[in-house]
Amino acid sequence: MTETLASTSREAAAALDSADPLAPFRDRFVIDDAVAYFDANSLGRLPAGTPARLERVVRGEWGRELVRGWDHWLALPLEVGDRLAPLLGASTGEVALADSTTVNFYRLLVGALDARRERRAIVTDRPNFPTDRYVIEGLAAARGLEIRWLEPDPIEGPTFADVAAVLDRDVAVVTLSHVNYRSAAIADLASITAAAHDVGALVVWDLSHAAGSIPVGLDENDVDLAVGCTYKYLNGGPGAPAFLVVAARLQAELRQPIWGWFGQRDQFAMGRGYDPPPDIRRFLVGTPGILGLAAADEGIRLSVEAGIDAIRAKGIALTEYAIALHDAWLAPRGTTLGSPRDPSRRGSHVAIRHPQARGLTAAMIASGVIPDFREPDSIRIGLSPLTTSFEEAWRGLSVLRELLESG
Amino acid sequence: MTETLASTSREAAAALDSADPLAPFRDRFVIDDAVAYFDANSLGRLPAGTPARLERVVRGEWGRELVRGWDHWLALPLEVGDRLAPLLGASTGEVALADSTTVNFYRLLVGALDARRERRAIVTDRPNFPTDRYVIEGLAAARGLEIRWLEPDPIEGPTFADVAAVLDRDVAVVTLSHVNYRSAAIADLASITAAAHDVGALVVWDLSHAAGSIPVGLDENDVDLAVGCTYKYLNGGPGAPAFLVVAARLQAELRQPIWGWFGQRDQFAMGRGYDPPPDIRRFLVGTPGILGLAAADEGIRLSVEAGIDAIRAKGIALTEYAIALHDAWLAPRGTTLGSPRDPSRRGSHVAIRHPQARGLTAAMIASGVIPDFREPDSIRIGLSPLTTSFEEAWRGLSVLRELLESG
Repeated sequence: MTETLASTSREAAAALDSADPLAPFRDRFVIDDAVAYFDANSLGRLPAGTPARLERVVRGEWGRELVRGWDHWLALPLEVGDRLAPLLGASTGEVALADSTTVNFYRLLVGALDARRERRAIVTDRPNFPTDRYVIEGLAAARGLEIRWLEPDPIEGPTFADVAAVLDRDVAVVTLSHVNYRSAAIADLASITAAAHDVGALVVWDLSHAAGSIPVGLDENDVDLAVGCTYKYLNGGPGAPAFLVVAARLQAELRQPIWGWFGQRDQFAMGRGYDPPPDIRRFLVGTPGILGLAAADEGIRLSVEAGIDAIRAKGIALTEYAIALHDAWLAPRGTTLGSPRDPSRRGSHVAIRHPQARGLTAAMIASGVIPDFREPDSIRIGLSPLTTSFEEAWRGLSVLRELLESG
Repeated sequence: MTETLASTSREAAAALDSADPLAPFRDRFVIDDAVAYFDANSLGRLPAGTPARLERVVRGEWGRELVRGWDHWLALPLEVGDRLAPLLGASTGEVALADSTTVNFYRLLVGALDARRERRAIVTDRPNFPTDRYVIEGLAAARGLEIRWLEPDPIEGPTFADVAAVLDRDVAVVTLSHVNYRSAAIADLASITAAAHDVGALVVWDLSHAAGSIPVGLDENDVDLAVGCTYKYLNGGPGAPAFLVVAARLQAELRQPIWGWFGQRDQFAMGRGYDPPPDIRRFLVGTPGILGLAAADEGIRLSVEAGIDAIRAKGIALTEYAIALHDAWLAPRGTTLGSPRDPSRRGSHVAIRHPQARGLTAAMIASGVIPDFREPDSIRIGLSPLTTSFEEAWRGLSVLRELLESG
């Protein structure tokens, strides 16, 4: 395989596809072969089974069962959460699907800050995803907290040493993205979580670019809290409901700030006084969107079926391959790699940097190759283990090579 | 019509349907005539056009456009909000679809409390919907506020006098449901809003049982803030996204507490520092669920097409008819009416009270009649102006009559 990865021929790409144990999963998605899709890390492709599932939910359940559908819909947020749990290394009863990533991040961050009320600092990094940064800023402003902004290497991401340098017993929460949205750098979740715990802080990990692309190991690393979205590598659909994870050992102790009827012990008694059960249900709030949940479930099932280890192996192979093509074709024409070269420190996309990245992205899209542009100079090449073929990577990067050649 | 309403014959019901200008709307929904559905005020019926709209969104947009779908999906929360606005008496740019009712209620209530930071009291009523009460309790606990609980007449709901009696300049917010979920009592939105303003308080109205069933008149009554759901009379589907309304005059001044990337002025610059635009967009948070939004849009379009005045006229006729049947058939067999008799004070459902309400509800459902039970003793008969026929009301209440007769 190493030898094939080093070849830039189309035949070599085809050979890699032939040897790929996950190749059959591509047929389980709706795929237009005229397009090279490099943005499944923003919106994953449509699973072939999702339209029929939605048809069943809409016509069969909503249309026929009407309100009686809630007899089974009520269980969906936790049922799909339990299905997702193994992909994250979490246990049954620790994961729920609900709301958006931003709302969940806010809710868990408030829960963590309330549990460390005597402490005054939040640690995060400047390259963190914007919505996380904004939520942190909002809470820091409302509560008069200090934000300790890490300024890690923009490609390699925050290291254990970066975090350790700012930790002390005034830190309430350390919150980072496991995989950075721009560079794909993987933060060292294990050592950073342990370091935070050493000073008595809690951690909140954003797994949006990790879920369904790399193993996370939440329980084995004693992670407290996590959130993430299901519309990227999990192929849940545009704006699919997000997930949240609360370690079982913390569920009875932590609260979240939005006290809603889906977090009430005996919801339909509609009684006086909010009284949340001592488990994951207390982290639910309002009525869940059933269409979105059903679609998310279909996507999640495919990743569960493939298994996170096989997904990770393919993600490494795809990104190594893309980097090999980058080095052979693109670097000589003025690009640089904006992602870590060590595959163990890299998620499933690669950033390719070029001063004209914005214009190149537009030209690629006009040619049927869909990456996305990220300020200030990155073309983000998402390589989704279940749906991207090596031939597709070859074809899409060939277009970028041609664009660079033609100036 | 009054004469026909007074008759309990099936023929009279058929005559009412023949004379009903909204009768053709029933054919725009998927309807199983073997069922009498009295719970469209919990989950509205499936519009006939929704499956095809979802098919277009799923296969045509997600499947083919992939991430490029966001070029138009991004506008949906405000586009559908603008479509909904006339039903609420709000203006373009005042309504957004987002999140759940509970999350929106929390966000707007925090916004209102922050704008009246020097005041220490929230006014609401004990019979308010549970999720509203829980959110209020959570915020009162977190901020050390006093809740002034009204105890209105359980059937007639909170009056102007009930509210006026507890108002003073320490009240930050008055928040009530426009239509009570149990009794269908309509609170006097105009006078209560004016009274709250007289002491410098803000109002947050929950329109969940009002939207698409009665005129609300938000702008003409100078309402500050409102929330509500789209899955009841608006037929948006199970867990469809909720709406929120912020009066234009308050948009630049108010903030909401969850600072997310969809509330950022130049979202995809992903820049430093949260900087929300001075309009309704600052009340958006995270990535909206597009499947749910598309389905909500289909339902909302039908109500807009019918017009709120025609909807209100039919809602009054249906509830008057159901009350006439109640008085003729059911009251002699031990039921009492749990809703206001004055139609101007009643939304589009009627509560029928009986000591065995829970068992009767189960027996009705077993016979293909679907109301819902509300603690402690109410059978809630939802009569949805676009989808309930008089014949259906006759048929369903006949079953209840037979159950009462057979003991």
